[in-house]
Amino acid sequence: MSNIFAVINGQFVQEQDAKISINDLSIQRGYGIFDYFRTRNNEPVFLQDHLDRFFHSAAVMNLPVEQSREELEQLINGLIAKNGLPHSGIRITLTGGYSDNGYTPAKPNLLITQSAYTFNTEAFGKGIRLVTYDHQRQLPQVKTIDYLQSIYLQPFITEHGADDVLYHQQGALRECPRSNFFIVTKKNEIITPAEKVLKGITRKKILSLQGLDVKEGTVMLEDLHDIREAFISSTTKVVLPVLAIDGKIIGNGKPGEITAEICRRLVEERGGSE
Amino acid sequence: MSNIFAVINGQFVQEQDAKISINDLSIQRGYGIFDYFRTRNNEPVFLQDHLDRFFHSAAVMNLPVEQSREELEQLINGLIAKNGLPHSGIRITLTGGYSDNGYTPAKPNLLITQSAYTFNTEAFGKGIRLVTYDHQRQLPQVKTIDYLQSIYLQPFITEHGADDVLYHQQGALRECPRSNFFIVTKKNEIITPAEKVLKGITRKKILSLQGLDVKEGTVMLEDLHDIREAFISSTTKVVLPVLAIDGKIIGNGKPGEITAEICRRLVEERGGSE
Repeated sequence: MSNIFAVINGQFVQEQDAKISINDLSIQRGYGIFDYFRTRNNEPVFLQDHLDRFFHSAAVMNLPVEQSREELEQLINGLIAKNGLPHSGIRITLTGGYSDNGYTPAKPNLLITQSAYTFNTEAFGKGIRLVTYDHQRQLPQVKTIDYLQSIYLQPFITEHGADDVLYHQQGALRECPRSNFFIVTKKNEIITPAEKVLKGITRKKILSLQGLDVKEGTVMLEDLHDIREAFISSTTKVVLPVLAIDGKIIGNGKPGEITAEICRRLVEERGGSE
Repeated sequence: MSNIFAVINGQFVQEQDAKISINDLSIQRGYGIFDYFRTRNNEPVFLQDHLDRFFHSAAVMNLPVEQSREELEQLINGLIAKNGLPHSGIRITLTGGYSDNGYTPAKPNLLITQSAYTFNTEAFGKGIRLVTYDHQRQLPQVKTIDYLQSIYLQPFITEHGADDVLYHQQGALRECPRSNFFIVTKKNEIITPAEKVLKGITRKKILSLQGLDVKEGTVMLEDLHDIREAFISSTTKVVLPVLAIDGKIIGNGKPGEITAEICRRLVEERGGSE
């Protein structure tokens, strides 16, 4: 019997009792949005950025949020106090609700869950390998619950000896399913695809780092032949070096110096690693 | 208090108690497949076709079905006997299950629901209006729960005075979100897009009608300027005439003769209307 709680529509419920009816539009039609942030020593990291994006996603998808921002913060703080998981990930999900006709969104269901998460300090040194795939995510700028294509591609990723997939649209690189992608050119420009991607919070923090030549731009598949470093960014992973793409080594095949510097500065900004 | 039952993983439960945990991969990641068929006088219509497609969708998406085909049929027949809804729609959904890491599919949850449905005999005469939109559905040949784009587009459809959206990919027509699309040319060829669409059961029945020149092919946006009739097909609607697309009248703006003949023959094949 776990003593972990979740929140459903403002009520705290034990995790094993946290259920919704099967006529919810997330189950029927994959319709919902979410956001996900970390806590460190019981403090939410970059909470306001995540709440900004949560409310934006909800508005774009025509899902009204019953709770005010203050009420959401109270629920989040209540959950942190109840669960006693100082280093964690917290997910806020807003679904299409109990639709009468199984298609038109109804009053959304708001779900908040927390799970223990400790930053894996060894992951940086190992880096990751990517395999590319021609796919443009639908509604890319909204953090929807749609991960159908990427979960479907898990066997493809494994077959190609990779850790994750990097989407491109007819050669124009986009993003990984759960992280943004950056290259470091031989001129030390740090470039991340500008268009048709989810604008990650970590991506935003990287774009605002001072003293580095970081920018949004166009990155093509063929640009990968002549770069110094590559890395991905996400709330969960912060920054991870990309050591190979489609089986071809990037740079010298080891985590790059600029990637390491960016990772250090981000960890510093969020108050340290756990 | 409703006396309608649903099935969750082989167990009959009252509809109001039919719930699943919020860590199911349908709620977390929009990952699941389904199929939907009608009953008429308590008899499933084209059940074997729908079960064929259900098992195919599950296999493509790497979701194992715990139940055999015979067990599924028994559950469906049990539900029909319990609920007493002679004319209905039955939906079988298979979700990604309770994933430990919120991403990798686990043991799927199987959900079967039934709701009353009576064929709307007036719908044919009214026909429908479509608005086109450039979008290629992901994994189009699988009946997944992904309707994110089409539900998002509901306000767009309303703004354009239409009843539904017709997707095309750079001018190549595909399908509507919940139905297949057909044109009737001035030579009385009946053509439905061959590629990157869900192969509907009603579509299949139409393609096998004898004595008509029905075929799969390429249909471009510009072909719509010079056609005699257009219609959509689906399990719910059988066949509905399309009277206008993007505000332009198709044919003489009334349900076409060939469309009407196809509808008559399909209703006959399924044993009549309700």
